[in-house]
Amino acid sequence: MQVITTVKEMQALSKKMKAEGRSIGFVPTMGALHEGHMSLVRSSINDNDITIVSIFINPTQFGPNEDFNRYPKDHKGDMKKISALNVEAVFLPGVAEIYPKGFSTFLYVGGIGGVLCGASRPDHFNGVATVVAKLFNAVMPERAYFGQKDFQQTVVIRKLVKEMNFDTDIIVCPIVREPDGLAMSSRNAYLNEEERMSAVILNKALHYGRELMLSGREKQTSSIRAKMDALIKSAPLVTIEYIEIVGPQYLEKMKDVTFPAVICLAIKIGNTRLIDNIIVRSDEQSAVSFQQREKM
Amino acid sequence: MQVITTVKEMQALSKKMKAEGRSIGFVPTMGALHEGHMSLVRSSINDNDITIVSIFINPTQFGPNEDFNRYPKDHKGDMKKISALNVEAVFLPGVAEIYPKGFSTFLYVGGIGGVLCGASRPDHFNGVATVVAKLFNAVMPERAYFGQKDFQQTVVIRKLVKEMNFDTDIIVCPIVREPDGLAMSSRNAYLNEEERMSAVILNKALHYGRELMLSGREKQTSSIRAKMDALIKSAPLVTIEYIEIVGPQYLEKMKDVTFPAVICLAIKIGNTRLIDNIIVRSDEQSAVSFQQREKM
Repeated sequence: MQVITTVKEMQALSKKMKAEGRSIGFVPTMGALHEGHMSLVRSSINDNDITIVSIFINPTQFGPNEDFNRYPKDHKGDMKKISALNVEAVFLPGVAEIYPKGFSTFLYVGGIGGVLCGASRPDHFNGVATVVAKLFNAVMPERAYFGQKDFQQTVVIRKLVKEMNFDTDIIVCPIVREPDGLAMSSRNAYLNEEERMSAVILNKALHYGRELMLSGREKQTSSIRAKMDALIKSAPLVTIEYIEIVGPQYLEKMKDVTFPAVICLAIKIGNTRLIDNIIVRSDEQSAVSFQQREKM
Repeated sequence: MQVITTVKEMQALSKKMKAEGRSIGFVPTMGALHEGHMSLVRSSINDNDITIVSIFINPTQFGPNEDFNRYPKDHKGDMKKISALNVEAVFLPGVAEIYPKGFSTFLYVGGIGGVLCGASRPDHFNGVATVVAKLFNAVMPERAYFGQKDFQQTVVIRKLVKEMNFDTDIIVCPIVREPDGLAMSSRNAYLNEEERMSAVILNKALHYGRELMLSGREKQTSSIRAKMDALIKSAPLVTIEYIEIVGPQYLEKMKDVTFPAVICLAIKIGNTRLIDNIIVRSDEQSAVSFQQREKM
């Protein structure tokens, strides 16, 4: 497995692979890899001739008071996990390679970048779009893999790809969860024992909301959100940032219960901000095959 | 010669050419083609296996009170000129193909986009960067050709390419001028006879400024700019927007005369805004070969 640190070398490898007619799958990560990331890597290996994994903690997607400086790092563990799989290369650029002195070119994603997480993290998705565009131009993948856990991010990136004409298919893979239902996240490492126990409330609240939606008894999303709010507040150490029920493509807030919908939430447990979501389809929609659903 | 109107078809052609190992040269234009454009097309044909020319009047690079609606159009003349040369395809997308409903992804170029022309046209270079990025992702060229007449644009695009990791070389070709020295521009068509005569003052002023710089008698750019200002004001119908002497790479305003430098100016003649520039090198620098100079 190669380790590549410059954009030029990355492009040289990708062009060589493309000239040989080999398809490239790409998994961009910020490291501290867990089973969620590894499921993306396995999907990529399954779908493509070669797979590239990048590890880059992107400073421009962190706000001034966020956790950029203490974001979990596990270089040794990451390399061990990746090298156990059939990955062609790890792209490991330094910050000065991605953002050299004088850098001032940014992508702005507009509307859907300003709602949900974007409301409290105003430049987050602009930073995500900027680094993803740069990484796509470095790796030139046929397909790139993202986890559904960052649902808004997948919507932003699909829009970025469509609107900037990137010739890359975006594949969204299901959320991987701990046995008790907590969505895997590098930030789970911040939680102490008590906080970790409280964190189960995210997934519980999502399933509660889903059941209320499917029951047919609740017609308004406002009452579902209120009931979820009350449930989440019953857990200790928790502050709610948002609970929203939105459309899956444009993230518009829904007033009446309709399907498909996505229940998204962001809460703080102690100092740790966690997000989670669930896609809710009517029973009829749920009968559609997984592949089709993921294209929704 | 093919005429292509969708991004998907354009990408399909480019990928086919690349798979065959053929290099792609790209000349993006807004149509109303003149000898300046044709010199770019000939350079591309000379350097590459195939050449793609795009014609798209990009709405996002025009300000609200600018000439988007009356920008010169000559589809028949353009197609005749292009088809006389060995051009593989003309990419001719409509506005809805480039900016579909709900479009909200834009590139922002920062500092160098806000000086010179960017001072009076605040979103101009963001619009240029956005459409160039989209066109590059559609055409996937090895090399793209731009005229030195839009000097600031060439600097912005080189920075865009470097900072967004586009795998495209930017080739800047010399200004093509009318016999009396007026730089060729589609907007020259706006000039009436009297205005057309006045317009010669741009090139005259640039050569006057260059001579003053090289004479060694003027040490401060401010006095050179003042003398150019007086000369330009001697011509009828003229309003000066700016006369600046800047560094060729970062467009920083120079206080002391140093080389290489670029004298840039923008003036209005009647209602028509015209720009022009000249690169000034010391005699020593001028001895360097043309090719090297263009890489400056």
